[in-house]
Amino acid sequence: MFPIVTLLTDFGTADGYVGQMKGVILTHAPGAALVDITHDIAPQDVTHARFVVDGYWRRFPPGTVHLVVVDPGVGTPRAALAVAADHRFLVGPDNGVLSAALRHEGAHVVSIDVPHGASPVFHGRDVFAPAAAALAEGTPMGQLGAELRAPVCLDWPVPRPNELGQLEGEVIAVDRFGNAITNLDGAVAAGARVNVNTSELGVLRTYGDVEPGQSLALVGSGGLIEIAVREGSAAQRFGLQRGTKVTLLRGVNGQP
Amino acid sequence: MFPIVTLLTDFGTADGYVGQMKGVILTHAPGAALVDITHDIAPQDVTHARFVVDGYWRRFPPGTVHLVVVDPGVGTPRAALAVAADHRFLVGPDNGVLSAALRHEGAHVVSIDVPHGASPVFHGRDVFAPAAAALAEGTPMGQLGAELRAPVCLDWPVPRPNELGQLEGEVIAVDRFGNAITNLDGAVAAGARVNVNTSELGVLRTYGDVEPGQSLALVGSGGLIEIAVREGSAAQRFGLQRGTKVTLLRGVNGQP
Amino acid sequence: MFPIVTLLTDFGTADGYVGQMKGVILTHAPGAALVDITHDIAPQDVTHARFVVDGYWRRFPPGTVHLVVVDPGVGTPRAALAVAADHRFLVGPDNGVLSAALRHEGAHVVSIDVPHGASPVFHGRDVFAPAAAALAEGTPMGQLGAELRAPVCLDWPVPRPNELGQLEGEVIAVDRFGNAITNLDGAVAAGARVNVNTSELGVLRTYGDVEPGQSLALVGSGGLIEIAVREGSAAQRFGLQRGTKVTLLRGVNGQP
Repeated sequence: MFPIVTLLTDFGTADGYVGQMKGVILTHAPGAALVDITHDIAPQDVTHARFVVDGYWRRFPPGTVHLVVVDPGVGTPRAALAVAADHRFLVGPDNGVLSAALRHEGAHVVSIDVPHGASPVFHGRDVFAPAAAALAEGTPMGQLGAELRAPVCLDWPVPRPNELGQLEGEVIAVDRFGNAITNLDGAVAAGARVNVNTSELGVLRTYGDVEPGQSLALVGSGGLIEIAVREGSAAQRFGLQRGTKVTLLRGVNGQP
Repeated sequence: MFPIVTLLTDFGTADGYVGQMKGVILTHAPGAALVDITHDIAPQDVTHARFVVDGYWRRFPPGTVHLVVVDPGVGTPRAALAVAADHRFLVGPDNGVLSAALRHEGAHVVSIDVPHGASPVFHGRDVFAPAAAALAEGTPMGQLGAELRAPVCLDWPVPRPNELGQLEGEVIAVDRFGNAITNLDGAVAAGARVNVNTSELGVLRTYGDVEPGQSLALVGSGGLIEIAVREGSAAQRFGLQRGTKVTLLRGVNGQP
Repeated sequence: MFPIVTLLTDFGTADGYVGQMKGVILTHAPGAALVDITHDIAPQDVTHARFVVDGYWRRFPPGTVHLVVVDPGVGTPRAALAVAADHRFLVGPDNGVLSAALRHEGAHVVSIDVPHGASPVFHGRDVFAPAAAALAEGTPMGQLGAELRAPVCLDWPVPRPNELGQLEGEVIAVDRFGNAITNLDGAVAAGARVNVNTSELGVLRTYGDVEPGQSLALVGSGGLIEIAVREGSAAQRFGLQRGTKVTLLRGVNGQP
């Protein structure tokens, strides 16, 4: 079986930076199967990249190498990480974008040695791509660099009770459709309602439970409560962005 | 030879939904070669997706599995289809997006059983991706679900003669370049002219037959008459969109 | 090892043109590994495509076939090229987009015979894709067509001294981040300053050498001087586009 290397960047594709990285990977790991996750992360948006990585890294088969390059600190003394966690590998900058894997039980982290002559403005090509290829080829982590004890780990905000005893969360991501994903756990929300920017919405099952153009809440595919408009944009309708407060109201059965 | 699985969605890539689907496919069909068609279909635009699918599904080798997820009705009682037609497989929602394959002689259709625990808002990941992987691995259609008798089949509008006896068609797609593809068959159009929004254009051979910035009609790569502007946008110039009427005028040789 | 075929176009993906090309390649070269470089080149922007090709074509392993289709002259008498250079193959229109490979020592060029029945508006699918697949399968260049003596070769503008003896270059590309890549060689620029639209910027090492929002010059990953704004767009800040003049000033050590 060929090794899988996935790629996530904020480079877009039109300037060929990703193309150069792919060339480097295939030169060092000629049998690798390259899988594009996305190159359309907004420039420098580590938070959204982290949201996306959280969603896919464990869905790939054991042995997969995930290359993640959203790297505003390229060329500064921030470390370049290789992480082994849950039988997958991840490679990316030490800015929190790999937090989910770093927190995974038994995660092993090294600080990748920067090769002599690496461009200080393109570690994606000169540091991360070769490291990903090496891992794909079976190189032991220890050969990439020394163990790192305290990589940057970021947390998602945690919902907290407000003065009325209601759970107050917030939007953590807005997707292409304008759906707003919150940090409110969908497990506690069946039959509940949410309040967002003075509008109150029932937590339903799927978009088709309302008419086109109508709004609703639902439990998203990641298990979190989402605000949506059927065949429309909830972000636009309700003015939602990362950080917008969303409050979980009492459920119809009187339970919060 | 490895099995090929192509992917078409309206998900964009930036939110990782497609990444999750790819992980699921490669977990269930580890040797599959993933081929991106597009993830940039406008949200919920089943019609354009159908236009695109029509163009590529039979151009891939026998055995290819085409995953097509433009699915405004996700989670509703609409069926999830697996189709075997002309030695290819297609997987997608029962909303007409697979019409071309469904109409193909000898097409075999099943309604995919929705796995227990599937997210009602992400059948792409939890229903269609596993089904595509299963087909790629050689699973017989019958193991995915029961035969479906009357899937949704959509037609393209058919050109009709107007009161002057001219064939009146319409724009069925506008592409990235602003070329407007009509439903007028190019086979009958050599030497003809078309009328669109009061402008009259000759049906020429290729863009280079006029100067940059000039407009023309031509027979597109799918065999249909197209309205174009060389190195410009016909859609913008003439105000064209899906449904805009385009009339085939008498040819220069006096034939319609 | 499977043969690698990379793809660069200005087609976007949403209309399925690239999907059709992929189907054709995999039909003719069933074991090929397809690698997307980009399909987001601005329509007909041969210059930017050439900039991108320059950056990646030699970074892929020997034997790789690069398919490059930015082709405003499709269907006109412009030749369709196959190039063998430095153990790689390139296929694309004779409009200069393959100049870097054409200039490579020992480059061998043929004019691809256009197959009977090829659409005059989609050589990407009907001429270039089959040729790329044939090369991937090991078909000798000579079987694709006759040798071509004088393909179109484009040069990048060369910096020249101005009346003050300063080297005057220009912007040759603007990337997604708004970084402006110039034709000034970074090798001579360490410790120097540049002048662009009346602003003067020091040539530093990397983005992180200034605060977020501040501007700088640096030596880009291709070895050329770049104008940048940390976590911002230099193109926007300074009104930069292809052709904007950039002057290399005396270095801090008194050397130009």
